[in-house]
Amino acid sequence: MRKVKLYIAMSLDGFIANDKGSVDFIEGDGSDENNFGTYNEFYESIDTVIIGKNTYDQIVNELSPDEWPYEGKMSYIITSGEIKESENIKKSSNLIECINTLKKSSGKDIWICGGASIVNQLINENLIDEYRVTIIPTILSKGTKLFDIKEQLKLKLISYTSYNGFVEVKYEKRGINE
Amino acid sequence: MRKVKLYIAMSLDGFIANDKGSVDFIEGDGSDENNFGTYNEFYESIDTVIIGKNTYDQIVNELSPDEWPYEGKMSYIITSGEIKESENIKKSSNLIECINTLKKSSGKDIWICGGASIVNQLINENLIDEYRVTIIPTILSKGTKLFDIKEQLKLKLISYTSYNGFVEVKYEKRGINE
Repeated sequence: MRKVKLYIAMSLDGFIANDKGSVDFIEGDGSDENNFGTYNEFYESIDTVIIGKNTYDQIVNELSPDEWPYEGKMSYIITSGEIKESENIKKSSNLIECINTLKKSSGKDIWICGGASIVNQLINENLIDEYRVTIIPTILSKGTKLFDIKEQLKLKLISYTSYNGFVEVKYEKRGINE
Repeated sequence: MRKVKLYIAMSLDGFIANDKGSVDFIEGDGSDENNFGTYNEFYESIDTVIIGKNTYDQIVNELSPDEWPYEGKMSYIITSGEIKESENIKKSSNLIECINTLKKSSGKDIWICGGASIVNQLINENLIDEYRVTIIPTILSKGTKLFDIKEQLKLKLISYTSYNGFVEVKYEKRGINE
């Protein structure tokens, strides 16, 4: 079955944006700037991207206004409002239904790209299979917390690596009796 | 000069205790229970332990009531109250003064053992040289945050390793212009 994969960058203390909503803290130490870790391998493994409305707005207004960065993949923007849809960019007003439908259909894996609200709704419904987090070597103390879930969640470490001052960790859900 | 080293365990999302004050989430995946990572090498490198009053109370009342776990090292408990002092366990009512005095004297490195209040006061005064964090494969979402500092702090990754489902990361302070 298609896996639902979180892949996101956070500060060492668990924030995905600073208190101004900016992601400009996401930078390495410059030691290895052309190394993107496991991103390419990951990006090959997915054909669908799930994005919250705030993250979508940030992408089209600030981060990549000239070009949709996930061209060639199917993108679903989760919103009850309106967006400019296209052949490869659709909106969905019901996140859980969207994911459940996608999981039942055939295809490659599904990337949960953010933001935090999307991530936490899915964890609370036990719908994320793989957690891949790039730890940025910065302490923020405030901003947008990545994780804010109802119950404590135990994970199983699958692999870890490092590039350009980042540490990338990959976990899976643990079995219920572990 | 003696280094001031933080070495502490936190959840993947940056908490050192859960919302009941408990550290019972600090457990690996059982794959490698007799592997303590770099702890022994680290413990050899220090001769002094700095501990906040809450952490001290937790050690003597719950975690290790029968035996002081840092016997053979000099321990300083930071408190304005009273504790049972001994040859190797002293109290200090002024954390910053205590650290500055220790840094000027000779000896091995100094371990900042916790809790969070101690850690954050020292970071705000730019007094921690090395950050060694063991990332526990659990998401807590609430509890006692490890980091709560005034300014964003950029770090430099020095090394990383893994054992028993934990990932251990070691950082140093970055230079002012980095």
